[in-house]
Amino acid sequence: MKQTIEKLNKEKSTQWPDFFNTINVELAILEENLVVKLPAKSKLLKEIVSYIFLSGGKRFRPAISLLMAKATGGVKDKHVTLSEITELIHTASLIHDDIIDSAKLRRGNETINSLWNDKISVIAGYFLFGQASVKLGELENTEIVKIYAHVLSDLCNGEIEQYSLLFNPNITLEKYIEKSTSKTASLFAACCKSSAILNNQDPKIIKHCNDYGMSLGIAFQIVDDILDFTSSANEIGKDACSDLKNGIITAPTLFALNSTDERAKQIRILIENRFNNDEKDFDKAIRLVFELGGCEKAKQLAINHIDNAKENISFVKNPELKSHLLSIAEMVIKKMRI
Amino acid sequence: MKQTIEKLNKEKSTQWPDFFNTINVELAILEENLVVKLPAKSKLLKEIVSYIFLSGGKRFRPAISLLMAKATGGVKDKHVTLSEITELIHTASLIHDDIIDSAKLRRGNETINSLWNDKISVIAGYFLFGQASVKLGELENTEIVKIYAHVLSDLCNGEIEQYSLLFNPNITLEKYIEKSTSKTASLFAACCKSSAILNNQDPKIIKHCNDYGMSLGIAFQIVDDILDFTSSANEIGKDACSDLKNGIITAPTLFALNSTDERAKQIRILIENRFNNDEKDFDKAIRLVFELGGCEKAKQLAINHIDNAKENISFVKNPELKSHLLSIAEMVIKKMRI
Repeated sequence: MKQTIEKLNKEKSTQWPDFFNTINVELAILEENLVVKLPAKSKLLKEIVSYIFLSGGKRFRPAISLLMAKATGGVKDKHVTLSEITELIHTASLIHDDIIDSAKLRRGNETINSLWNDKISVIAGYFLFGQASVKLGELENTEIVKIYAHVLSDLCNGEIEQYSLLFNPNITLEKYIEKSTSKTASLFAACCKSSAILNNQDPKIIKHCNDYGMSLGIAFQIVDDILDFTSSANEIGKDACSDLKNGIITAPTLFALNSTDERAKQIRILIENRFNNDEKDFDKAIRLVFELGGCEKAKQLAINHIDNAKENISFVKNPELKSHLLSIAEMVIKKMRI
Repeated sequence: MKQTIEKLNKEKSTQWPDFFNTINVELAILEENLVVKLPAKSKLLKEIVSYIFLSGGKRFRPAISLLMAKATGGVKDKHVTLSEITELIHTASLIHDDIIDSAKLRRGNETINSLWNDKISVIAGYFLFGQASVKLGELENTEIVKIYAHVLSDLCNGEIEQYSLLFNPNITLEKYIEKSTSKTASLFAACCKSSAILNNQDPKIIKHCNDYGMSLGIAFQIVDDILDFTSSANEIGKDACSDLKNGIITAPTLFALNSTDERAKQIRILIENRFNNDEKDFDKAIRLVFELGGCEKAKQLAINHIDNAKENISFVKNPELKSHLLSIAEMVIKKMRI
């Protein structure tokens, strides 16, 4: 197994941008702790956990959390634990998302619910949350416990919100941002903020870190939603346009729906009918979203949030680290999904 | 809604034993906090949460936690929060259990997975865990965060352990107790222990509280497993003998399997064949478990654990509270499922 991890880390490090070198020791420890050291008692659970962490995931959240730690005073052992908690919660939420969406593929690999079943997925997601809780306890910091508890609560509210709004073309931009905050940005904000808290930074700096993570997270979700439209199944490792197919209205569709063009009404009707009137309905809806510039407008929204993220790291004095945090923000826009 | 809660509390109080009067103010607050005050954002989630908490559950764990608080120095606001955390985790685990077991009925009512679907159940269970985490943060006690994090981890390990051992007649008594500890007793122990911790008791007393909860919890699980054999569907509010039907080997079957009688081998073969050779296979297995005295032997095991629980509260000086804690232990044996 040790060789597998080393090989995996080597493979991963070739995918990572150069500036990740500054945190590659910590990322290697994180990798080992996730793939090998989680205390799964049964053979089956061990197998599932290894499969999950060996089958992808670019550790984007741990990376920003660790870089933020460097930028706010240095990386302590507790920062590595924090980045593990963040990745555990993120991974658990993906497993549960895949049950909810009945997804077959994730990161180009079969999902747990597809390879095993929904029941096993529930337990596996659960187990990762449980491990996140155990590690949260180890941090011995009540403020961070509260922050991550709210992340968990946000994740559920975001998920149920999304479920309640399926095939509903009346969703507002405000609601979409609220849902994206709950589902994605809340965890980004939490890991950035908590890194600064562990370095005993003052409240102003902590707020900047929180806001950097929050804006980055919202932009990340918007870009993810655009990629669902613009990428092939091969590129994104799951079915293309699966969001709209499943009735999830994201930024590109939302902007198309809000257009004053007559075609907006057509999209609305197609969604309300759940693309069921004609077998070409779904393809038509996708075409109309493109024609009405939904993806371009969504991209502009993402850029605005990235600009906001960048503004929030003007407090970082170290030019190298500041440039890394700016590069991460740029990476989101460049649609490099890492 | 207020009237509903009052009516509900009135109904509940008639089911509760008299000595619960000593904590009925706290139980009423708990009820209101669970049914009305959980911050579910969407209408759907609000509806599900109300359904869950209005459709049964005798608040047994909150009751022992609150009585233990009284016995170790008095009930503070944080003890009520602790009892809410305990009931939230317990309820979330039931919802997820019902997905895993594809259960249709719980406490005589339709399960969430049956009334809605598996996806909604995942989110609902999740939401309750999220709320438990938020309340855990409010306690501002790192030791208790760690204790409950381990409970969560235990719950998953117990669940996957059970899943791994389906239709496996080689399960040992030790493994069964370990699984019962993870699935049930760990939470009982946590709420008793944490009540004493919140009252700043010394480590010896805290250990006694932990051990009382642990023994009580193991006995509770054994009795629950016996009831699955001896009760009608109407009495237990779910299908009778559903454990063995689903391949879960509990204490009565285990004792029957360990008998030196020839019929033990027959049970083994029936289980290994998953009762699939003949339509009468399952009924035959049940009959053999009874014939070999599986339920009586399991009852004796439960009594041993109850005796152990009782020994651990000899430290309680207040005769009234001591008698209440003894009565709770007796109640488990009397198979009064509260």
